[in-house]
Amino acid sequence: MDFKLSILKTTILIHCPDQAGIISVTTNFIHQHKGNIIYLDQHVDKETNVFFMRLDSDFEGSSFPTEKFKDEFQRELADRYNMQWSMHEAGVKPKMALFVSKYNHCLYDLLSRFNSSELEVDIPFIISNHPDLKPIADQFNIPYYHIPVTKDTKAEAEAKQLELLKEYEVDFIVLARYMQIVSPKIISNFPNRIINIHHSFLPAFAGAKPYHAAFKRGVKIIGATSHYVTEELDAGPIIEQDVTTVTHAHSIKDFIAKGRDLEKIVLSRAVKLHILRKTMVYNNKTVIFS
Amino acid sequence: MDFKLSILKTTILIHCPDQAGIISVTTNFIHQHKGNIIYLDQHVDKETNVFFMRLDSDFEGSSFPTEKFKDEFQRELADRYNMQWSMHEAGVKPKMALFVSKYNHCLYDLLSRFNSSELEVDIPFIISNHPDLKPIADQFNIPYYHIPVTKDTKAEAEAKQLELLKEYEVDFIVLARYMQIVSPKIISNFPNRIINIHHSFLPAFAGAKPYHAAFKRGVKIIGATSHYVTEELDAGPIIEQDVTTVTHAHSIKDFIAKGRDLEKIVLSRAVKLHILRKTMVYNNKTVIFS
Amino acid sequence: MDFKLSILKTTILIHCPDQAGIISVTTNFIHQHKGNIIYLDQHVDKETNVFFMRLDSDFEGSSFPTEKFKDEFQRELADRYNMQWSMHEAGVKPKMALFVSKYNHCLYDLLSRFNSSELEVDIPFIISNHPDLKPIADQFNIPYYHIPVTKDTKAEAEAKQLELLKEYEVDFIVLARYMQIVSPKIISNFPNRIINIHHSFLPAFAGAKPYHAAFKRGVKIIGATSHYVTEELDAGPIIEQDVTTVTHAHSIKDFIAKGRDLEKIVLSRAVKLHILRKTMVYNNKTVIFS
Amino acid sequence: MDFKLSILKTTILIHCPDQAGIISVTTNFIHQHKGNIIYLDQHVDKETNVFFMRLDSDFEGSSFPTEKFKDEFQRELADRYNMQWSMHEAGVKPKMALFVSKYNHCLYDLLSRFNSSELEVDIPFIISNHPDLKPIADQFNIPYYHIPVTKDTKAEAEAKQLELLKEYEVDFIVLARYMQIVSPKIISNFPNRIINIHHSFLPAFAGAKPYHAAFKRGVKIIGATSHYVTEELDAGPIIEQDVTTVTHAHSIKDFIAKGRDLEKIVLSRAVKLHILRKTMVYNNKTVIFS
Repeated sequence: MDFKLSILKTTILIHCPDQAGIISVTTNFIHQHKGNIIYLDQHVDKETNVFFMRLDSDFEGSSFPTEKFKDEFQRELADRYNMQWSMHEAGVKPKMALFVSKYNHCLYDLLSRFNSSELEVDIPFIISNHPDLKPIADQFNIPYYHIPVTKDTKAEAEAKQLELLKEYEVDFIVLARYMQIVSPKIISNFPNRIINIHHSFLPAFAGAKPYHAAFKRGVKIIGATSHYVTEELDAGPIIEQDVTTVTHAHSIKDFIAKGRDLEKIVLSRAVKLHILRKTMVYNNKTVIFS
Repeated sequence: MDFKLSILKTTILIHCPDQAGIISVTTNFIHQHKGNIIYLDQHVDKETNVFFMRLDSDFEGSSFPTEKFKDEFQRELADRYNMQWSMHEAGVKPKMALFVSKYNHCLYDLLSRFNSSELEVDIPFIISNHPDLKPIADQFNIPYYHIPVTKDTKAEAEAKQLELLKEYEVDFIVLARYMQIVSPKIISNFPNRIINIHHSFLPAFAGAKPYHAAFKRGVKIIGATSHYVTEELDAGPIIEQDVTTVTHAHSIKDFIAKGRDLEKIVLSRAVKLHILRKTMVYNNKTVIFS
Repeated sequence: MDFKLSILKTTILIHCPDQAGIISVTTNFIHQHKGNIIYLDQHVDKETNVFFMRLDSDFEGSSFPTEKFKDEFQRELADRYNMQWSMHEAGVKPKMALFVSKYNHCLYDLLSRFNSSELEVDIPFIISNHPDLKPIADQFNIPYYHIPVTKDTKAEAEAKQLELLKEYEVDFIVLARYMQIVSPKIISNFPNRIINIHHSFLPAFAGAKPYHAAFKRGVKIIGATSHYVTEELDAGPIIEQDVTTVTHAHSIKDFIAKGRDLEKIVLSRAVKLHILRKTMVYNNKTVIFS
Repeated sequence: MDFKLSILKTTILIHCPDQAGIISVTTNFIHQHKGNIIYLDQHVDKETNVFFMRLDSDFEGSSFPTEKFKDEFQRELADRYNMQWSMHEAGVKPKMALFVSKYNHCLYDLLSRFNSSELEVDIPFIISNHPDLKPIADQFNIPYYHIPVTKDTKAEAEAKQLELLKEYEVDFIVLARYMQIVSPKIISNFPNRIINIHHSFLPAFAGAKPYHAAFKRGVKIIGATSHYVTEELDAGPIIEQDVTTVTHAHSIKDFIAKGRDLEKIVLSRAVKLHILRKTMVYNNKTVIFS
């Protein structure tokens, strides 16, 4: 058994109550296990006194098997400092499920990035409550499950969705303009692992028809917001936002067209941050590492 | 009497029900009165079918006295097409009153622009509910009226404010971080002529302490909004907005510091647009001419 | 022959030496021909004293046949005021040829917008000096001509390109990250009708490898520029630019990835402006109507 | 002697050849000296293999006198790892000299921030080659030295400047739109400690009259750049940049007016970063810590 290969490059995410010396003991631990820290970013939430850290380490030349490393980390650091932590080995692609409805711009943007190897994920399937976007799924050779959702069939549809998510061992879900409210049951199975794109600069214009509301209010800037889905609609932890200017000369249709460009870029950025494990959620807010 | 000098350069603002031929008849009218149009911008609000136009004209060489021009414009155009219109001769400086409380960044920004002749206004006085900023007024040689406002003295204070506004024939008011709600009485005397700066990206975080609310919500972008004051708090027609990015690493104090830079720039831009007569208000929204 | 249908909605673009009364006589002419002006934007270049105007008019109810309208416009206005002008009827789709090499992000972006009817054009074909992107052309059912270009075959390749451009009556060309210099011959056949995307904030970092140059210089902002192609490399009239921030922590690879998102959005915006006839070129600069 | 008070809060800046274990040994060292790291940011320049780190530590409760701490740091870490390092105690205000000419916007912006305690510096004096801005210096009660510069008197003027800089023990210089080239002699006395604001998005439009050049080129975005001054004009390490959009409708005068707002904000941000010791210079580039 070649222990040397067992862990190579890893990303470790930690959060725990803030206390003196944490950075020192953690970096020391890595050092003693022959790891070289190639990136470290840390943050202390001053309000709640919580410490967050993201560490990229290179263990080339180390001979610690992964499990032993994990055990010792848990015993020597996590237990002592009350850490929540996770370790992610480089090269393991997470499985991302896409939920869509009828709009295709976010889907096209994600799939073309996927096709260019910009997103290091597997996409086991696309789920939609409409058949419209199947041709795009076909273009990119990704299975497309049309699961209609009506008031009467909602529970049944969700059961089917959940079944697929489990069968394919999906790691996280991206709602690429999926125009249905995701049920608490699915949310509870994917805490902080469902990424939505909302077509407004939240918290302004939460809910339906944000471009219409923005137009009516006469704002000079519109935006898009990508966030993790929680039970409270449009109120989950924000991952990424961006904005663009509008004028009195723009119609609602113009708002929607300009907004599409925001939505797809903002969603793709959020998905990339999630894939790269650069997001941590705490207190309904995100820490986004650089 | 030298009619030739009576009008030279003017800005005309028009709004009326949209109807075929308005641009043609209006530009024709100017042409026939020996005016040369040097700028024309127009907009039709498709929802309400209202037409807006801003015309800069040069009457050098024309011999129409202002009053005659106005009479004929009213009779031949305004009456016929049901126009609301106003004409502003170049070189006439409007009188701008400043209301402040304790924050000085917007005041400094406006006064230093004023001192550099960037703002073509007269500033007859500064009113404040606190004495703190008097030294800045003194620096710039502008009269400073300290009118304290308490629950009990609010009516009296407003009467004093109104008296000053009338005495000095003030044209418009700028609330440069004035931390008091302006009374309906003053608003009704200055419809669409009171400019406020709100320290959030409205309609998000209306009301007090927007930076605290933005911090709590975990937004990734904060903003500032300049708008005309109406009776409904923070809900008046938006003139100008701008935003800047924030991260989890920024504290509320950082939000406030970054926000100050937004506030002063956004307010100054709005004030400039107002001075240049580039704003028209309709339906609680603004048309901002380029 | 039903004259009423001959022209309905048109866009007229005019430029000529600036002179008093032009707006008036032009709008009058439209009015007399039973046209209703639904949009007018104008600009005077103060340096060269050139007047530019863009007019959208609705001729519903008018009975002038297009040719008669054009003749009279030429005789009564263009000849008298020395106008260069063009008239474009709504609903006529221009033919857009795409030139690509190996990068697919701009191609995907344009084709997905085309597929969503966001771009009102026909795309008769894609030309590439490499075979790599043929599968994408196939995905979208657009003919793909692989025309290799080497030093020895350049002239021959261009002849083939020109032949295709003529055969399909192409109106304008989009270089969607086409990594070859377009020959003067093709440029002279498509003056101000070849749109390029350059991956820097021109005029900074013109030429090859702009991201490498930007990285070396340590800039804090990178950009992309879409411009019309002229014989001088990267020096043609700029249509659209946008930027994004970078930090010391970004590698060249990061610059390139962030840049891709800029490139595709900036190019698509420029293409849209061109299709909507919102661009006029003069003196190696553009007037971009709103 | 109460050693406990000798060092309290410090910022340590380090750069050295990258090597395994540096973060660990450094954080360990702080920990062993009873310091608590409250902020750590690090960067590795992959091209030159140089490691950079910024550490904020709290030594409350520690009993190490500053000199002893410094000695041990030097011996145990700096010598061993070949570190360049500096330590800055919180609360010590650096001395900032201002150089100006005739433009007042940057001066006003810096002085109003200084007056509001936003900039934690002392400003011993303002130097100018013109008398024009003396009234502003007077407004803020700061000594103003008018040192005219002509071709003949340049050497003499610089000698006088240098004398003042030494007499007042100035730490760094801010060129707040100072329209003279600073001599190599002054630069060599203040390496990476002279901050300039250039009124373009460098490296575009280096040299004089950048707004004129930008106007001529027809760019759609203009910018401002703050950088450390080196002997090569406008080519020093960039600290901060920002941009704003322009259109064909903007005149050179408009470019200048819009640019002023950029210049003052960008310069103030750069000055703040410098004061907070968030900048490190290497290879003619900056690392800007968050």
